[in-house]
Amino acid sequence: MNVLGMFCVRARCGLVGFRTATSLRSFAGITVDQIDEEVAKLLELKAQLGGDDGKHQFVLKTAKGTRDYNPKQMAIREKVFNTIISCFKRHGAETIDTPVFELKETLTGKYGEDSKLIYDLKDQGGELLSLRYDLTVPFARYLAMNKITNIKRYHIAKVYRRDNPAMTRGRYREFYQCDFDIAGQYDAMIPDAECLKIVHEILSELDLGDFRIKVNDRRILDGMFAVCGVPDDKFRTICSTVDKLDKMPWEDVKKEMVNEKGLSEEAADQIGEYVSMQGGMDLAERLLQDQKMSQSKQACAGLSDIKLLFSYLQLFQVTDKVVFDLSLARGLDYYTGVIYEGVLTQAGVAPVSTEAQNGAPAEESVSVGSVAGGGRYDGLVGMFDPKSRKVPCVGVSIGIERIFSIMEQKAEASAEKVRTTEVQVMVASAQKNLLEERLKLLTELWNAGIKAEVMYKKNPKLLSQLQHCEESGIPLVAILGEQELKDGVVKLRVVATREEVDISRADLIGEIRRRTSEA
Amino acid sequence: MNVLGMFCVRARCGLVGFRTATSLRSFAGITVDQIDEEVAKLLELKAQLGGDDGKHQFVLKTAKGTRDYNPKQMAIREKVFNTIISCFKRHGAETIDTPVFELKETLTGKYGEDSKLIYDLKDQGGELLSLRYDLTVPFARYLAMNKITNIKRYHIAKVYRRDNPAMTRGRYREFYQCDFDIAGQYDAMIPDAECLKIVHEILSELDLGDFRIKVNDRRILDGMFAVCGVPDDKFRTICSTVDKLDKMPWEDVKKEMVNEKGLSEEAADQIGEYVSMQGGMDLAERLLQDQKMSQSKQACAGLSDIKLLFSYLQLFQVTDKVVFDLSLARGLDYYTGVIYEGVLTQAGVAPVSTEAQNGAPAEESVSVGSVAGGGRYDGLVGMFDPKSRKVPCVGVSIGIERIFSIMEQKAEASAEKVRTTEVQVMVASAQKNLLEERLKLLTELWNAGIKAEVMYKKNPKLLSQLQHCEESGIPLVAILGEQELKDGVVKLRVVATREEVDISRADLIGEIRRRTSEA
Repeated sequence: MNVLGMFCVRARCGLVGFRTATSLRSFAGITVDQIDEEVAKLLELKAQLGGDDGKHQFVLKTAKGTRDYNPKQMAIREKVFNTIISCFKRHGAETIDTPVFELKETLTGKYGEDSKLIYDLKDQGGELLSLRYDLTVPFARYLAMNKITNIKRYHIAKVYRRDNPAMTRGRYREFYQCDFDIAGQYDAMIPDAECLKIVHEILSELDLGDFRIKVNDRRILDGMFAVCGVPDDKFRTICSTVDKLDKMPWEDVKKEMVNEKGLSEEAADQIGEYVSMQGGMDLAERLLQDQKMSQSKQACAGLSDIKLLFSYLQLFQVTDKVVFDLSLARGLDYYTGVIYEGVLTQAGVAPVSTEAQNGAPAEESVSVGSVAGGGRYDGLVGMFDPKSRKVPCVGVSIGIERIFSIMEQKAEASAEKVRTTEVQVMVASAQKNLLEERLKLLTELWNAGIKAEVMYKKNPKLLSQLQHCEESGIPLVAILGEQELKDGVVKLRVVATREEVDISRADLIGEIRRRTSEA
Repeated sequence: MNVLGMFCVRARCGLVGFRTATSLRSFAGITVDQIDEEVAKLLELKAQLGGDDGKHQFVLKTAKGTRDYNPKQMAIREKVFNTIISCFKRHGAETIDTPVFELKETLTGKYGEDSKLIYDLKDQGGELLSLRYDLTVPFARYLAMNKITNIKRYHIAKVYRRDNPAMTRGRYREFYQCDFDIAGQYDAMIPDAECLKIVHEILSELDLGDFRIKVNDRRILDGMFAVCGVPDDKFRTICSTVDKLDKMPWEDVKKEMVNEKGLSEEAADQIGEYVSMQGGMDLAERLLQDQKMSQSKQACAGLSDIKLLFSYLQLFQVTDKVVFDLSLARGLDYYTGVIYEGVLTQAGVAPVSTEAQNGAPAEESVSVGSVAGGGRYDGLVGMFDPKSRKVPCVGVSIGIERIFSIMEQKAEASAEKVRTTEVQVMVASAQKNLLEERLKLLTELWNAGIKAEVMYKKNPKLLSQLQHCEESGIPLVAILGEQELKDGVVKLRVVATREEVDISRADLIGEIRRRTSEA
């Protein structure tokens, strides 16, 4: 091992300060191809050392930070999606879909410090690929590739982040995003205001308890950094630190700025003063008069837009929940203007999880926090366009996993049973040797569009057929027996009341439709 | 470089014949962790050498074998999904979801020769992961992990195969599967027959032209191989070759059997005779009497079940499309009983694609072939269960991409315009300075659940507002002007007829609902 270890140390020492890629992509005689080859050899060696152990240590689990959805969870998920999709459709959005992986270079340089969380695919020959980290960058790539300059679209799909999972709080490595974006050159703040209206509508309709929508603007942040004396090249990294204010107290944020990022104590303190400010249109007006802030053109542009935004939010009747909050930063690099975040504020909202159920005291439950976020990103599409043509965009992403967690908890707490199928009627029999007759009737029902099922047994017991109906909430049973067959009728039983009526075979479909139409 | 090169050679030589993993997972002082570390260092070196070149060679594309869906394609996709999902729900299925990637070992040893097509994720530390290759193996893993012995579920999601893409024929590396499976110990052939009924219903309802459903049984194939003199250890590989009969003539299949797989000419010829047979229940009866075939217990069990299956298919009224076809093999390892495949037979069915449109002659269009497939896999769940408890399963997968291709072509050919939004009304104005009034009305409509939009301009031209309605199929325009505001009315314009009526503000929502309720 010394040999290998020595090589690597030598190579890394040699590379200190060496950043210019040569056309041959080689250094000190090492080419990229050679590295590839050596990596392959090492991985093969690894496989030989540990690769055959799989059988003995076989673990029956999903990948770290991911989960299956069982039928009950799916029923809840469908309900949440339906609410969100109807809202997006009410606002006139189309929908698109993009592949789950992109060329690695498509994602490169878009996410700042978060890039390390991107999942890469193994180099199996061919293109280098990564799993999508969000839906925004693929959307921008889609717009540039298809030369689209105007679109209002939603996209609901899974994204992937090699983050530290916190599944009890609804943070996963695979999770859904529900994105709504408006691309196009329009008059200021009108689409931006619509995005906030959408967050307001969705969080209200899902009935998750009280919420706030925090608003800020990247230009205000940058202007603030400038007037507080942050060097230009530190804007992004200081911005990332400010973004941690919802998880860390100011003292720790300040410490990170000063000790880790090398900011002066004075600059940090000035930032600290600004980021404690919250308000509405009035705060924007006051800051426009602020001696220091008003020195920054950028900040003034942002503040004027916040004022305009609030005037539209008044027309949209959503100002009750919106707060202009100077501490809101949002980590991603690509935002250029307005940014916002929807936060649940109700105390005691705690997501359900197996861990939480197994003994964790209810008092420890914390708010799940941010459930929506977004902003304006006018430069992202231009990064993909060969001629750098800009397509201004603004959008919002609903953080659905945390919402699922809350809805699951609610369902758990409620007495109402969640149905996982929509079966209207079960075709049953009390007697033996009637499988063929059951299947015939079942076919009639299916062909008429009735949701129906039968037990896959030749001679099931009536009790077990009825029990299945009770368990899965099937409202009706169509019972066949020798007598019914002779009489040309079916005994229709209402599971809830145990009431039974003979219905002529010809009227059966109409009767089932009538009795289940309110569902 | 010599240093590195020497190390690797030495390590590999040392490992020849060395297959027993020690508990320390180390060899000659090298541990897996150390290898991980060295690999990380080398990859970092590679990134430094070549990582900065991206900008110059940037290619604006989706990954090979994948595609975006634009809003029109999504509208078609939604329609197809709705048809399929209603069928699954009519048959009483619940739905589940699983992560897009699984532990690599979960997929190992399940797909036979196709395993080489699995996408692996890069080893970035932590678990080794692969993208799911189908929905069946994750389903089996889900059942075993949650100790579920009875379920009828559907699952619609994307799967991944590093196959040679043929996008003109709807073959992609990322594609949807729509799976319906029944797990549980039931009386023979009842759930199997329901799966075929489902294929029949879906292919009929999607109205894709004529189709056939081929049926066979793995036990019949294995029995046939046995009586034809194929050695036991060659069953699977010969089965893979038989599977190619839908793409290759018999001569080539025979050549592969004899030349590549080392089968005797005589055995191959005997197989050739059997695999040319097609029929119904009668063929199963005839083969049960066949002198050679009847020597195999396995074949007889399969043939009896085919007979039983056909009796249920008669009750389900689907025998018109079902053929017992001894050439049907299906490549996957996990099937243990009945197998089937739905095939479109209408001549001239050719999928739309940009390549095909750009000059390829229409005569070259070929049938898209198989659009559904499945079978019984009674052993798969047991492979995951620590105590090898078996859960018998049967299922079907709808090959949706080929169906999309056909539906897209149909939409293209049809005069009817595909709407990509559901907007009912556009709020417009002919005069300047009415943005605020437009936004107020828009808010009223949204709050009442009406799907509405507005142009994001302070003073848009009436003509461009009307044009937008024409283009995107919006049926109504609510026009505001000074006079209307004074009178407390809105001018409601029907886009198709250009008819205009003044409606009092109070009645507007009811009137819009009334006029768009048939949609």
